[in-house]
Amino acid sequence: SINGDRLWQSLMDMAQIGATPKGGVCRLALTDVDKAGRDLFVDWCRTAGCSITVDRIGNIFARRPGRNNDLPPVVTGSHLDSQPTGGRFDGVYGVLAGLEVVRSLNDLGLETEHPVEVAVWTNEEGSRFAPAMVASGVFAGVFDLDYGLSRADVEGKTMGQELARIGYAGAAEVGRPVHAYFEAHIEQGPILEAEGKTIGVVTDAQGQRWYELNLTGVESHAGPTPMTRRKDALLGAARIVDLVNRIGLQFAPRACATVGMMQVYPNSRNVIPGKVFMTIDFRHPEDGTLAAMDKAMRDGVARICGEIGLDAGIEQIFYYAPVHFDDGCIEAVRKGVAEHGFTARDMVSGAGHDACYLARVAPTGMVFIPCIDGISHNEIEDATPEWVSAGGQVLLRAILEKAGA
Amino acid sequence: SINGDRLWQSLMDMAQIGATPKGGVCRLALTDVDKAGRDLFVDWCRTAGCSITVDRIGNIFARRPGRNNDLPPVVTGSHLDSQPTGGRFDGVYGVLAGLEVVRSLNDLGLETEHPVEVAVWTNEEGSRFAPAMVASGVFAGVFDLDYGLSRADVEGKTMGQELARIGYAGAAEVGRPVHAYFEAHIEQGPILEAEGKTIGVVTDAQGQRWYELNLTGVESHAGPTPMTRRKDALLGAARIVDLVNRIGLQFAPRACATVGMMQVYPNSRNVIPGKVFMTIDFRHPEDGTLAAMDKAMRDGVARICGEIGLDAGIEQIFYYAPVHFDDGCIEAVRKGVAEHGFTARDMVSGAGHDACYLARVAPTGMVFIPCIDGISHNEIEDATPEWVSAGGQVLLRAILEKAGA
Ligand SMILES: NC(=O)NCCC(=O)O
Ligand SMILES: NC(=O)NCCC(=O)O
Repeated sequence: SINGDRLWQSLMDMAQIGATPKGGVCRLALTDVDKAGRDLFVDWCRTAGCSITVDRIGNIFARRPGRNNDLPPVVTGSHLDSQPTGGRFDGVYGVLAGLEVVRSLNDLGLETEHPVEVAVWTNEEGSRFAPAMVASGVFAGVFDLDYGLSRADVEGKTMGQELARIGYAGAAEVGRPVHAYFEAHIEQGPILEAEGKTIGVVTDAQGQRWYELNLTGVESHAGPTPMTRRKDALLGAARIVDLVNRIGLQFAPRACATVGMMQVYPNSRNVIPGKVFMTIDFRHPEDGTLAAMDKAMRDGVARICGEIGLDAGIEQIFYYAPVHFDDGCIEAVRKGVAEHGFTARDMVSGAGHDACYLARVAPTGMVFIPCIDGISHNEIEDATPEWVSAGGQVLLRAILEKAGA
Repeated sequence: SINGDRLWQSLMDMAQIGATPKGGVCRLALTDVDKAGRDLFVDWCRTAGCSITVDRIGNIFARRPGRNNDLPPVVTGSHLDSQPTGGRFDGVYGVLAGLEVVRSLNDLGLETEHPVEVAVWTNEEGSRFAPAMVASGVFAGVFDLDYGLSRADVEGKTMGQELARIGYAGAAEVGRPVHAYFEAHIEQGPILEAEGKTIGVVTDAQGQRWYELNLTGVESHAGPTPMTRRKDALLGAARIVDLVNRIGLQFAPRACATVGMMQVYPNSRNVIPGKVFMTIDFRHPEDGTLAAMDKAMRDGVARICGEIGLDAGIEQIFYYAPVHFDDGCIEAVRKGVAEHGFTARDMVSGAGHDACYLARVAPTGMVFIPCIDGISHNEIEDATPEWVSAGGQVLLRAILEKAGA
């Protein structure tokens, strides 16, 4: 069994790196702060006897050898990057629960048949560089390496440049055989806590479509331009925000629909906005519904922009189909739950995870723990030491099941 | 009569300073580019025989002496600062038409009884530093000098600091007697061009109320947070943009209502926005209607934020009552129009102008020229050489009328 206190302490130590005033973290992908978090993780892993490999897109693998090192590894992990106002558990929990499994195997003197590796995937959040989960996507062959390295932030800095700058542009090829992949993660939603369950056995993940919209009207003076002569790009954007919300509600309870980002030009108090850039994030466990949401959005945007006289460019920049995880891995998670007698329920993940891409190339499973008030992507994101520990226990059992004790 | 070609050439020369790719200018208040524009103006005025005074809020006065220099001056002018994507005429036209009047008086060898001064007012646009017309407001005693100097841009730099940096923190006290003030300006709206009139005789200016709103919801993950558990600050902001538009239409044709600026936090694609900062700009020629718009806005914001569960802070940061210009100055403008046989109509200014504050301390009048397609606060803002010249002729006549030939 794992050492819950040690896992908790590691989480709190890592949370110092990029700590924000409200108790969260800001550890945007490939910043100096992300580098500091990576360095600390690598240090800890070396101390735990692991060897370190970094691949060309900056994914880090800390390897604990098995009895038979020709066998592909059982991999576990998640990400260390965060949202601009992120929490102390999203991503980092899966990484440090993996490290705790390695430390516990050491403590218990347990050898496994397969090697066990703890992975840190680059830029999972998709906040500094869109889209999300780009480096696990390259690992899984969903994206080309060049596509991954050329993702740019708003200042035009690419992932390739920033990896080189912080010293994490590794030499290893991206992608290789994985025997099984497990990822522990905070739920980031309200269900487990509301139902008083400790563990979520993740069977599926929602599909996602991400869009970028560019609306163009006519910039003009806010004073002398009559209401009826305006082509106000922000008015169009506002109606699209409301449309997106209505689409989400129409396909609720399982759909989610969000506008998270908006840039207004020229963004001056007495100028009717001439341009708006905005994003849309649609999610649903069924592909057909995602397609229906897409159509409702395109029809609605055309109508709104037609009414106001705006030009609209709509680009779908990211899509992934709903994921069903591996039944064998799901079973391994269930066994861990049963062994400890934790309360649990099956779940569909609302968020995307590196596990969703790994599932394309390896048997994959996920373990969720609850999240206070269901709040994530927020500095106040929180979890209890009991939940954190329980997830680690289940992860250890699932890994042992697949790695062979 | 004035030299229209010279006036046009001066406008085109000044438009080089801060020129933008689409043919406009970006000469934000108190930037290096604004300094370059001021330096060129001061140069031209010295060459025309004027003495220069700069006051403590950076207003520049170029003085052509009169026969009796104990008399208060007749002042004309406007501003050299622009919107981020501004045009070649807004503001700068009034300044250079004033300079052209001085040059023409020199050419004609005409002495005036009162001195004539050309004024450049600091930060008229209110874009880099809110509110608009802050320095003519200090001159007119509407704002304290300290209030003016402490206005800060989004980076926290104050007008006082930036004036010192560019060398335009002058020594002269702000405010002194003015015999009469005239301002020539581009209409910035569609009326004159639509009616085929060359000159607008400005009798009034709309009243304005500017607001800042801060909406606070709860930041949360766009994937696992159910639609019904969201407190989406951007959804509230979007509905307020639509509300503001409906209020504008409700009180149309004379009302204008605009949201020009919006900042979304944390502005990340997969985060439900937790905070939005936005501005509102209301205009109407009647104070009572502005009050009704204010009430409709406050009621609507309370309802929208109540529905979504947002906190809303509303601050009115700028207000001025509708202005009626001086009947004697209006008459002087009419005489100039009649003398040249220009087509003209009376107008209410939709924009605020430095003249609106000057009107509180001196007899004031304004001369409008048309504006192609009614478009201003846009790089494509345009006017014809004929209109530019006609406005200068009228300005010269009006100034002579008040300054005494
Ligand atoms: N787990 C997580 O927050 N992933 C970011 C990608 C997403 O928005 O689903
Ligand atoms: N003339 C002009 O654009 N003034 C700026 C202040 C306003 O928005 O009315």
